Amino acid sequence: MRTAFYISDGTAITSEVFGHATLSMFPVDFNHKTIPFVETVDKAQKIKELINSTAKSSGEKPLVFFTFVNPVLSDIILSSDGVCYDFLSYSSEIVKRELKVAPVPKVHRTHSIHEATYDFRIDAVNYALANDDGANVKDYEKADIILVGVSRSGKTPTSLYLALQYGIKAANYPMTEDDLEKGALPKCLLPFKHKIFGLTIDPERLSAIRQERMANSRYASIRQCRIEVREVEMLFKKNKIAYLNSTKFSVEEISAKIISETDLERRKY
Amino acid sequence: MRTAFYISDGTAITSEVFGHATLSMFPVDFNHKTIPFVETVDKAQKIKELINSTAKSSGEKPLVFFTFVNPVLSDIILSSDGVCYDFLSYSSEIVKRELKVAPVPKVHRTHSIHEATYDFRIDAVNYALANDDGANVKDYEKADIILVGVSRSGKTPTSLYLALQYGIKAANYPMTEDDLEKGALPKCLLPFKHKIFGLTIDPERLSAIRQERMANSRYASIRQCRIEVREVEMLFKKNKIAYLNSTKFSVEEISAKIISETDLERRKY
Repeated sequence: MRTAFYISDGTAITSEVFGHATLSMFPVDFNHKTIPFVETVDKAQKIKELINSTAKSSGEKPLVFFTFVNPVLSDIILSSDGVCYDFLSYSSEIVKRELKVAPVPKVHRTHSIHEATYDFRIDAVNYALANDDGANVKDYEKADIILVGVSRSGKTPTSLYLALQYGIKAANYPMTEDDLEKGALPKCLLPFKHKIFGLTIDPERLSAIRQERMANSRYASIRQCRIEVREVEMLFKKNKIAYLNSTKFSVEEISAKIISETDLERRKY
Repeated sequence: MRTAFYISDGTAITSEVFGHATLSMFPVDFNHKTIPFVETVDKAQKIKELINSTAKSSGEKPLVFFTFVNPVLSDIILSSDGVCYDFLSYSSEIVKRELKVAPVPKVHRTHSIHEATYDFRIDAVNYALANDDGANVKDYEKADIILVGVSRSGKTPTSLYLALQYGIKAANYPMTEDDLEKGALPKCLLPFKHKIFGLTIDPERLSAIRQERMANSRYASIRQCRIEVREVEMLFKKNKIAYLNSTKFSVEEISAKIISETDLERRKY
């Protein structure tokens, strides 16, 4: 199998995301290797040797997606036997030409604690945890968004993703059977209706997820799931609450859709 | 201020990560706009008009980082007044030349629920939540890693990041004063010593974080923080537990360092 290396003087997250997006267009399997924090000539030399030995033992040139601030390190990797692509070089040339400003490369430009919004993100994670699953209904004043849905409709992972990635404070509230029987939004949510975003899910998928948690329970039965989903969707419609069916979407997709359908202020790019 | 657009037929996460990494090299402020799920000609036309009106009103060409599977959509964006860069085109050419295989573009190739490892990630998030902060010490058998450190040393956000991004099941255990006084690892951790990774933090930073939580408490005092940090580091050394000082690092950096220092198996690229 062909090996792909993602190499950087930082976390190598950008190298990975970019390299992965490129390779995912090809119907080929790869052996992925991420090597972060390559900050010295010594380490870069070792990586070059690793690329060369991989090329030799497999008989195929590894694909190498890399970025370094220090050109000395770039040159070492470029002199290896891999197919090496300094993936920010081309785009930075385009931007430089347009802005007529020279780049000022800095190590750890992205994904570091020095980003202005880092503390927002950690605060948002703490907020999401403290306000998960209706655990605390007294702090909705501070919420940027309140995700509402039946148990196991994807609220918690979405809250955490919004917090970690975007610094958005997301509380989440599970609509219980008691809530649904009343056919109205719980009192604790009424003052914050403008912040509510609904999540719903196909009853079949919901039942399968609940089965894993509580096999053969009433809670997991398809009948119960159908009732709860129908009732929660009716409630969303009655209250003109925007909602989204999470069944076919990842947390990344759900989060991107929520942000694009609301006017949530993202605290990170 | 110059506007930068990140546009895609999917979440636009890759566009954002790539565009942001490029622009972060320039000492210039940008007005960032992410536009995900541009899947129709109609929507692409509207985005083109937005790019054009932005160019007109600001007098500066917006920078546009984009990727589409459908070339019809690409052509619409390329015909706008922005400086447009189809950022995967160049790298996919390089890979195509080397592999001698044509790309098979698919919508939602990355960041979708169809990735083979998606369920691992959601399971890992549920695991991290159930095993956060020593809440449950009976399920360490299933942990990929157990983060150990004093209260507020960065364990929880790191556990969640490892879960969400990499599908790694991370439990975390807070070393309390009682634990530290005994000068030994708690019994519940002993069978899993090989899975423990320590987090430590500068006492000054720890005290500042704890002050926010419990101002003027003994818990937040610099004296108490110094004692706890010294004792936990001694414990790590005595037990030959690898550890890392989290003070100057983001969760992304801490996670990347932990993965590169252990043999943790990542379930996502």
